[in-house]
Amino acid sequence: MSAFQHRPQREDSPLDQLIRALASLPGLGPRSARRIALHLLSRRDTALNHLTQALTLAADQIKPCNTCGNLDVTDPCRICAAPDRARGQICVVAGVSDLWAIERTGAYRGQYHILGGLLSALDGVRPEDLTIHKLIDRVNGGTTTEIIMALSATVDGQATAHIIADRLNHLPNTAEIKISRLAHGIPVGGDLDYLDDGTIATAMKSRL
Amino acid sequence: MSAFQHRPQREDSPLDQLIRALASLPGLGPRSARRIALHLLSRRDTALNHLTQALTLAADQIKPCNTCGNLDVTDPCRICAAPDRARGQICVVAGVSDLWAIERTGAYRGQYHILGGLLSALDGVRPEDLTIHKLIDRVNGGTTTEIIMALSATVDGQATAHIIADRLNHLPNTAEIKISRLAHGIPVGGDLDYLDDGTIATAMKSRL
Repeated sequence: MSAFQHRPQREDSPLDQLIRALASLPGLGPRSARRIALHLLSRRDTALNHLTQALTLAADQIKPCNTCGNLDVTDPCRICAAPDRARGQICVVAGVSDLWAIERTGAYRGQYHILGGLLSALDGVRPEDLTIHKLIDRVNGGTTTEIIMALSATVDGQATAHIIADRLNHLPNTAEIKISRLAHGIPVGGDLDYLDDGTIATAMKSRL
Repeated sequence: MSAFQHRPQREDSPLDQLIRALASLPGLGPRSARRIALHLLSRRDTALNHLTQALTLAADQIKPCNTCGNLDVTDPCRICAAPDRARGQICVVAGVSDLWAIERTGAYRGQYHILGGLLSALDGVRPEDLTIHKLIDRVNGGTTTEIIMALSATVDGQATAHIIADRLNHLPNTAEIKISRLAHGIPVGGDLDYLDDGTIATAMKSRL
Protein backbone atom coordinates (compact mmCIF):
# COMPACT_ATOMS: atom_id res chain seq x y z
CA MET A 1 0.00 0.00 0.00
CA SER A 2 1.40 3.37 -0.97
CA ALA A 3 0.35 6.80 0.21
CA PHE A 4 0.09 7.56 -3.52
CA GLN A 5 -1.87 4.50 -4.52
CA HIS A 6 -2.08 5.25 -8.22
CA ARG A 7 1.69 5.06 -8.65
CA PRO A 8 3.44 1.85 -9.60
CA GLN A 9 5.01 0.14 -6.56
CA ARG A 10 8.58 0.59 -7.76
CA GLU A 11 9.88 1.35 -4.29
CA ASP A 12 8.81 1.09 -0.69
CA SER A 13 9.52 4.44 0.92
CA PRO A 14 10.01 4.84 4.70
CA LEU A 15 6.63 6.58 4.77
CA ASP A 16 4.91 3.61 3.12
CA GLN A 17 6.69 1.25 5.50
CA LEU A 18 5.50 3.26 8.49
CA ILE A 19 1.93 3.39 7.20
CA ARG A 20 1.95 -0.35 6.52
CA ALA A 21 3.36 -1.14 9.99
CA LEU A 22 0.63 1.01 11.57
CA ALA A 23 -2.13 -0.42 9.36
CA SER A 24 -1.25 -3.96 10.50
CA LEU A 25 -2.14 -3.11 14.11
CA PRO A 26 -5.50 -4.41 15.38
CA GLY A 27 -8.35 -1.99 14.78
CA LEU A 28 -6.40 0.19 12.33
CA GLY A 29 -6.76 0.32 8.55
CA PRO A 30 -4.99 2.24 5.78
CA ARG A 31 -6.93 5.44 6.41
CA SER A 32 -6.35 5.60 10.17
CA ALA A 33 -2.71 4.52 9.64
CA ARG A 34 -2.14 7.43 7.25
CA ARG A 35 -3.72 9.81 9.74
CA ILE A 36 -1.52 8.53 12.58
CA ALA A 37 1.63 8.62 10.41
CA LEU A 38 0.98 12.30 9.57
CA HIS A 39 0.26 13.07 13.21
CA LEU A 40 3.57 11.45 14.22
CA LEU A 41 5.63 13.13 11.48
CA SER A 42 4.24 16.57 12.21
CA ARG A 43 5.00 16.22 15.94
CA ARG A 44 8.38 14.52 16.01
CA ASP A 45 9.50 15.28 19.55
CA THR A 46 6.18 15.04 21.33
CA ALA A 47 4.71 12.12 19.43
CA LEU A 48 7.09 10.19 17.16
CA ASN A 49 10.17 10.07 19.39
CA HIS A 50 8.00 9.60 22.45
CA LEU A 51 6.28 6.58 20.92
CA THR A 52 9.61 5.14 19.71
CA GLN A 53 11.04 5.47 23.22
CA ALA A 54 7.96 3.86 24.79
CA LEU A 55 8.17 0.94 22.33
CA THR A 56 11.91 0.45 22.92
CA LEU A 57 11.46 0.60 26.69
CA ALA A 58 8.55 -1.87 26.55
CA ALA A 59 10.52 -4.26 24.31
CA ASP A 60 13.48 -4.12 26.71
CA GLN A 61 11.72 -4.37 30.03
CA ILE A 62 8.35 -6.11 29.71
CA LYS A 63 8.48 -9.89 29.79
CA PRO A 64 5.97 -12.64 30.44
CA CYS A 65 5.80 -14.01 33.99
CA ASN A 66 7.06 -17.60 34.05
CA THR A 67 4.46 -18.56 36.62
CA CYS A 68 1.19 -17.10 35.34
CA GLY A 69 1.96 -15.64 31.90
CA ASN A 70 1.10 -12.04 32.84
CA LEU A 71 3.20 -9.26 31.24
CA ASP A 72 5.26 -7.20 33.69
CA VAL A 73 8.70 -5.70 34.24
CA THR A 74 9.49 -8.33 36.89
CA ASP A 75 9.40 -12.14 36.77
CA PRO A 76 7.51 -13.37 38.79
CA CYS A 77 5.09 -10.54 38.06
CA ARG A 78 3.81 -8.14 40.70
CA ILE A 79 0.59 -10.13 41.10
CA CYS A 80 2.40 -13.46 41.65
CA ALA A 81 4.87 -11.76 44.02
CA ALA A 82 2.31 -9.73 46.01
CA PRO A 83 2.40 -10.88 49.65
CA ASP A 84 -1.18 -9.74 50.30
CA ARG A 85 -2.87 -11.80 47.55
CA ALA A 86 -4.41 -15.21 48.26
CA ARG A 87 -2.00 -17.97 47.13
CA GLY A 88 -4.63 -20.69 46.94
CA GLN A 89 -6.93 -19.09 44.38
CA ILE A 90 -6.06 -19.28 40.69
CA CYS A 91 -8.24 -17.41 38.22
CA VAL A 92 -7.89 -18.93 34.74
CA VAL A 93 -8.19 -16.39 31.91
CA ALA A 94 -7.65 -16.58 28.14
CA GLY A 95 -5.35 -13.55 27.84
CA VAL A 96 -3.69 -10.63 29.59
CA SER A 97 -6.51 -8.28 28.58
CA ASP A 98 -8.95 -10.44 30.61
CA LEU A 99 -6.59 -10.24 33.61
CA TRP A 100 -6.55 -6.44 33.23
CA ALA A 101 -10.35 -6.35 33.01
CA ILE A 102 -10.69 -8.33 36.25
CA GLU A 103 -7.96 -6.29 37.98
CA ARG A 104 -9.76 -3.07 37.09
CA THR A 105 -12.80 -4.24 39.05
CA GLY A 106 -10.72 -4.76 42.18
CA ALA A 107 -13.07 -7.65 43.05
CA TYR A 108 -10.43 -10.36 43.09
CA ARG A 109 -7.27 -10.66 45.21
CA GLY A 110 -5.86 -14.05 44.23
CA GLN A 111 -3.48 -15.40 41.56
CA TYR A 112 -4.02 -15.77 37.82
CA HIS A 113 -3.19 -18.23 35.09
CA ILE A 114 -3.12 -17.04 31.48
CA LEU A 115 -3.94 -19.73 28.92
CA GLY A 116 -2.73 -17.80 25.88
CA GLY A 117 -6.00 -18.30 24.02
CA LEU A 118 -8.99 -20.62 23.89
CA LEU A 119 -9.42 -24.01 22.27
CA SER A 120 -10.82 -23.55 18.79
CA ALA A 121 -11.63 -26.24 16.26
CA LEU A 122 -12.02 -23.57 13.58
CA ASP A 123 -8.66 -21.88 14.22
CA GLY A 124 -6.90 -25.19 14.97
CA VAL A 125 -6.01 -24.30 18.58
CA ARG A 126 -5.43 -27.57 20.48
CA PRO A 127 -4.98 -28.12 24.26
CA GLU A 128 -1.20 -28.40 23.81
CA ASP A 129 -1.13 -24.92 22.23
CA LEU A 130 -2.36 -23.42 25.51
CA THR A 131 -0.60 -23.34 28.88
CA ILE A 132 -2.94 -25.96 30.39
CA HIS A 133 0.01 -28.22 31.31
CA LYS A 134 1.62 -25.36 33.25
CA LEU A 135 -1.63 -24.86 35.15
CA ILE A 136 -1.76 -28.60 35.98
CA ASP A 137 1.86 -28.42 37.19
CA ARG A 138 1.04 -25.40 39.37
CA VAL A 139 -1.95 -27.13 40.92
CA ASN A 140 -0.05 -30.42 41.30
CA GLY A 141 2.89 -28.90 43.11
CA GLY A 142 1.07 -26.30 45.14
CA THR A 143 -1.50 -25.53 47.76
CA THR A 144 -4.33 -24.51 45.43
CA THR A 145 -7.79 -24.46 47.00
CA GLU A 146 -9.86 -22.95 44.19
CA ILE A 147 -9.70 -22.66 40.41
CA ILE A 148 -11.94 -19.92 39.00
CA MET A 149 -12.69 -20.32 35.30
CA ALA A 150 -13.05 -16.74 34.01
CA LEU A 151 -13.50 -17.73 30.37
CA SER A 152 -15.87 -16.35 27.74
CA ALA A 153 -19.44 -17.67 27.66
CA THR A 154 -18.84 -18.92 24.12
CA VAL A 155 -18.54 -22.44 22.71
CA ASP A 156 -14.74 -22.12 22.65
CA GLY A 157 -14.61 -20.74 26.19
CA GLN A 158 -16.84 -23.45 27.60
CA ALA A 159 -14.97 -26.23 25.73
CA THR A 160 -11.70 -24.90 27.19
CA ALA A 161 -13.17 -24.78 30.71
CA HIS A 162 -14.45 -28.34 30.27
CA ILE A 163 -11.05 -29.71 29.16
CA ILE A 164 -9.28 -27.99 32.07
CA ALA A 165 -11.81 -29.28 34.61
CA ASP A 166 -11.43 -32.77 33.15
CA ARG A 167 -7.63 -32.69 33.51
CA LEU A 168 -7.84 -31.28 37.02
CA ASN A 169 -10.20 -34.09 38.04
CA HIS A 170 -7.50 -36.63 37.16
CA LEU A 171 -5.05 -35.14 39.69
CA PRO A 172 -4.48 -36.97 43.02
CA ASN A 173 -5.27 -33.96 45.25
CA THR A 174 -8.36 -33.02 43.28
CA ALA A 175 -10.85 -33.52 46.10
CA GLU A 176 -9.56 -30.47 48.00
CA ILE A 177 -9.82 -28.15 45.00
CA LYS A 178 -13.00 -26.27 44.26
CA ILE A 179 -13.60 -25.53 40.59
CA SER A 180 -15.86 -22.53 40.06
CA ARG A 181 -16.80 -20.33 37.12
CA LEU A 182 -17.98 -16.73 36.70
CA ALA A 183 -21.75 -16.46 37.11
CA HIS A 184 -23.81 -16.04 33.96
CA GLY A 185 -26.76 -13.68 34.02
CA ILE A 186 -28.02 -10.25 33.20
CA PRO A 187 -25.28 -7.57 32.95
CA VAL A 188 -25.54 -4.83 35.56
CA GLY A 189 -27.54 -2.04 33.96
CA GLY A 190 -28.71 -4.45 31.25
CA ASP A 191 -32.18 -3.99 29.80
CA LEU A 192 -34.14 -7.28 29.65
CA ASP A 193 -35.76 -6.25 26.41
CA TYR A 194 -32.40 -6.04 24.60
CA LEU A 195 -30.84 -9.26 25.96
CA ASP A 196 -30.69 -12.48 23.98
CA ASP A 197 -32.88 -15.43 24.99
CA GLY A 198 -29.92 -17.56 26.12
CA THR A 199 -28.80 -15.00 28.69
CA ILE A 200 -32.32 -14.54 30.07
CA ALA A 201 -32.88 -18.32 30.26
CA THR A 202 -29.53 -18.81 32.06
CA ALA A 203 -30.28 -15.96 34.46
CA MET A 204 -33.69 -17.49 35.22
CA LYS A 205 -32.19 -20.95 35.89
CA SER A 206 -29.42 -19.49 38.10
CA ARG A 207 -31.81 -17.21 40.03
CA LEU A 208 -30.83 -16.55 43.65
CA MET B 1 -4.05 5.85 33.00
CA SER B 2 -2.89 2.48 34.25
CA ALA B 3 -3.65 -0.94 32.85
CA PHE B 4 -4.78 -1.68 36.40
CA GLN B 5 -6.89 1.37 36.90
CA HIS B 6 -7.97 0.64 40.45
CA ARG B 7 -4.41 0.79 41.72
CA PRO B 8 -2.91 3.97 43.09
CA GLN B 9 -0.67 5.67 40.54
CA ARG B 10 2.52 5.17 42.55
CA GLU B 11 4.60 4.44 39.47
CA ASP B 12 4.41 4.66 35.72
CA SER B 13 5.44 1.29 34.34
CA PRO B 14 6.82 0.87 30.79
CA LEU B 15 3.52 -0.82 29.92
CA ASP B 16 1.51 2.17 31.13
CA GLN B 17 3.84 4.52 29.25
CA LEU B 18 3.36 2.52 26.05
CA ILE B 19 -0.42 2.46 26.45
CA ARG B 20 -0.49 6.20 27.13
CA ALA B 21 1.70 6.94 24.10
CA LEU B 22 -0.60 4.84 21.90
CA ALA B 23 -3.78 6.30 23.40
CA SER B 24 -2.62 9.82 22.51
CA LEU B 25 -2.62 9.00 18.78
CA PRO B 26 -5.57 10.33 16.75
CA GLY B 27 -8.51 7.93 16.65
CA LEU B 28 -7.22 5.75 19.49
CA GLY B 29 -8.50 5.62 23.08
CA PRO B 30 -7.45 3.69 26.18
CA ARG B 31 -9.23 0.50 25.11
CA SER B 32 -7.76 0.32 21.59
CA ALA B 33 -4.35 1.38 22.98
CA ARG B 34 -4.41 -1.55 25.45
CA ARG B 35 -5.38 -3.91 22.64
CA ILE B 36 -2.55 -2.67 20.40
CA ALA B 37 -0.01 -2.80 23.26
CA LEU B 38 -0.89 -6.45 23.93
CA HIS B 39 -0.72 -7.23 20.21
CA LEU B 40 2.75 -5.66 20.02
CA LEU B 41 4.08 -7.35 23.16
CA SER B 42 2.86 -10.78 22.12
CA ARG B 43 4.50 -10.44 18.67
CA ARG B 44 7.81 -8.78 19.41
CA ASP B 45 9.73 -9.56 16.23
CA THR B 46 6.93 -9.29 13.71
CA ALA B 47 5.08 -6.34 15.22
CA LEU B 48 6.88 -4.46 18.01
CA ASN B 49 10.42 -4.37 16.58
CA HIS B 50 9.04 -3.88 13.09
CA LEU B 51 7.06 -0.82 14.17
CA THR B 52 10.02 0.57 16.13
CA GLN B 53 12.24 0.23 13.06
CA ALA B 54 9.64 1.86 10.82
CA LEU B 55 9.31 4.78 13.25
CA THR B 56 13.08 5.22 13.57
CA LEU B 57 13.54 5.08 9.80
CA ALA B 58 10.71 7.58 9.26
CA ALA B 59 12.13 9.96 11.89
CA ASP B 60 15.58 9.77 10.27
CA GLN B 61 14.65 10.03 6.63
CA ILE B 62 11.33 11.81 6.14
CA LYS B 63 11.54 15.59 6.10
CA PRO B 64 9.31 18.41 4.88
CA CYS B 65 10.00 19.75 1.39
CA ASN B 66 11.29 23.32 1.63
CA THR B 67 9.38 24.34 -1.47
CA CYS B 68 5.90 22.94 -1.00
CA GLY B 69 5.80 21.43 2.51
CA ASN B 70 5.14 17.86 1.38
CA LEU B 71 6.74 15.05 3.42
CA ASP B 72 9.29 12.96 1.53
CA VAL B 73 12.76 11.40 1.81
CA THR B 74 14.17 14.02 -0.57
CA ASP B 75 14.14 17.84 -0.48
CA PRO B 76 12.80 19.09 -2.89
CA CYS B 77 10.22 16.31 -2.76
CA ARG B 78 9.57 13.94 -5.65
CA ILE B 79 6.57 15.98 -6.79
CA CYS B 80 8.50 19.28 -6.88
CA ALA B 81 11.43 17.53 -8.60
CA ALA B 82 9.40 15.56 -11.16
CA PRO B 83 10.35 16.71 -14.67
CA ASP B 84 7.01 15.60 -16.15
CA ARG B 85 4.76 17.68 -13.88
CA ALA B 86 3.48 21.12 -14.90
CA ARG B 87 5.59 23.83 -13.24
CA GLY B 88 3.03 26.60 -13.66
CA GLN B 89 0.16 25.03 -11.71
CA ILE B 90 0.15 25.20 -7.91
CA CYS B 91 -2.59 23.37 -6.04
CA VAL B 92 -3.04 24.88 -2.56
CA VAL B 93 -4.04 22.34 0.11
CA ALA B 94 -4.40 22.53 3.90
CA GLY B 95 -2.31 19.46 4.74
CA VAL B 96 -0.30 16.51 3.42
CA SER B 97 -3.32 14.20 3.71
CA ASP B 98 -5.17 16.39 1.19
CA LEU B 99 -2.18 16.16 -1.17
CA TRP B 100 -2.27 12.37 -0.84
CA ALA B 101 -6.01 12.32 -1.51
CA ILE B 102 -5.56 14.32 -4.73
CA GLU B 103 -2.53 12.23 -5.79
CA ARG B 104 -4.53 9.02 -5.36
CA THR B 105 -7.01 10.25 -7.95
CA GLY B 106 -4.23 10.75 -10.54
CA ALA B 107 -6.28 13.65 -11.91
CA TYR B 108 -3.66 16.36 -11.29
CA ARG B 109 -0.09 16.62 -12.63
CA GLY B 110 1.09 19.98 -11.32
CA GLN B 111 2.79 21.28 -8.17
CA TYR B 112 1.39 21.67 -4.64
CA HIS B 113 1.59 24.11 -1.79
CA ILE B 114 0.78 22.93 1.73
CA LEU B 115 -0.57 25.63 4.04
CA GLY B 116 -0.15 23.67 7.27
CA GLY B 117 -3.76 24.20 8.31
CA LEU B 118 -6.65 26.58 7.75
CA LEU B 119 -7.40 29.97 9.23
CA SER B 120 -9.57 29.52 12.29
CA ALA B 121 -10.93 32.20 14.57
CA LEU B 122 -11.97 29.52 17.08
CA ASP B 123 -8.57 27.80 17.22
CA GLY B 124 -6.66 31.05 16.92
CA VAL B 125 -4.94 30.20 13.62
CA ARG B 126 -3.89 33.48 11.92
CA PRO B 127 -2.57 34.03 8.36
CA GLU B 128 1.03 34.23 9.68
CA ASP B 129 0.66 30.74 11.22
CA LEU B 130 0.21 29.27 7.74
CA THR B 131 2.72 29.19 4.87
CA ILE B 132 0.84 31.84 2.86
CA HIS B 133 3.97 34.06 2.67
CA LYS B 134 5.94 31.16 1.15
CA LEU B 135 3.21 30.72 -1.47
CA ILE B 136 3.34 34.45 -2.29
CA ASP B 137 7.15 34.21 -2.61
CA ARG B 138 6.81 31.22 -4.94
CA VAL B 139 4.29 33.01 -7.13
CA ASN B 140 6.26 36.25 -7.04
CA GLY B 141 9.54 34.71 -8.14
CA GLY B 142 8.20 32.15 -10.54
CA THR B 143 6.31 31.41 -13.68
CA THR B 144 3.00 30.44 -12.12
CA THR B 145 0.01 30.41 -14.43
CA GLU B 146 -2.69 28.92 -12.20
CA ILE B 147 -3.40 28.64 -8.48
CA ILE B 148 -5.97 25.94 -7.65
CA MET B 149 -7.55 26.33 -4.21
CA ALA B 150 -8.26 22.78 -3.04
CA LEU B 151 -9.55 23.76 0.38
CA SER B 152 -12.48 22.41 2.36
CA ALA B 153 -15.94 23.77 1.61
CA THR B 154 -16.19 25.02 5.21
CA VAL B 155 -16.18 28.54 6.65
CA ASP B 156 -12.49 28.15 7.60
CA GLY B 157 -11.56 26.76 4.18
CA GLN B 158 -13.35 29.52 2.30
CA ALA B 159 -11.96 32.25 4.57
CA THR B 160 -8.44 30.90 3.92
CA ALA B 161 -9.05 30.81 0.14
CA HIS B 162 -10.35 34.38 0.29
CA ILE B 163 -7.28 35.70 2.17
CA ILE B 164 -4.91 33.95 -0.26
CA ALA B 165 -6.75 35.27 -3.32
CA ASP B 166 -6.68 38.75 -1.80
CA ARG B 167 -2.91 38.63 -1.24
CA LEU B 168 -2.31 37.22 -4.72
CA ASN B 169 -4.31 40.05 -6.26
CA HIS B 170 -1.85 42.56 -4.78
CA LEU B 171 1.09 41.04 -6.66
CA PRO B 172 2.45 42.86 -9.75
CA ASN B 173 2.17 39.88 -12.11
CA THR B 174 -1.33 38.98 -10.90
CA ALA B 175 -3.07 39.50 -14.26
CA GLU B 176 -1.40 36.46 -15.81
CA ILE B 177 -2.38 34.13 -12.96
CA LYS B 178 -5.69 32.30 -12.99
CA ILE B 179 -7.13 31.54 -9.55
CA SER B 180 -9.50 28.58 -9.58
CA ARG B 181 -11.12 26.38 -6.97
CA LEU B 182 -12.42 22.81 -6.84
CA ALA B 183 -15.99 22.58 -8.14
CA HIS B 184 -18.75 22.20 -5.58
CA GLY B 185 -21.61 19.85 -6.32
CA ILE B 186 -23.08 16.44 -5.80
CA PRO B 187 -20.49 13.74 -4.92
CA VAL B 188 -20.17 10.99 -7.54
CA GLY B 189 -22.52 8.21 -6.42
CA GLY B 190 -24.25 10.64 -4.06
CA ASP B 191 -27.96 10.22 -3.39
CA LEU B 192 -29.84 13.52 -3.69
CA ASP B 193 -32.17 12.54 -0.89
CA TYR B 194 -29.31 12.32 1.61
CA LEU B 195 -27.47 15.51 0.61
CA ASP B 196 -27.75 18.75 2.54
CA ASP B 197 -29.63 21.69 1.07
CA GLY B 198 -26.47 23.79 0.65
CA THR B 199 -24.83 21.21 -1.60
CA ILE B 200 -27.92 20.80 -3.77
CA ALA B 201 -28.41 24.57 -4.08
CA THR B 202 -24.73 25.02 -5.06
CA ALA B 203 -24.94 22.17 -7.58
CA MET B 204 -28.08 23.72 -9.09
CA LYS B 205 -26.43 27.16 -9.40
CA SER B 206 -23.27 25.68 -10.95
CA ARG B 207 -25.15 23.41 -13.37
CA LEU B 208 -23.37 22.70 -16.64
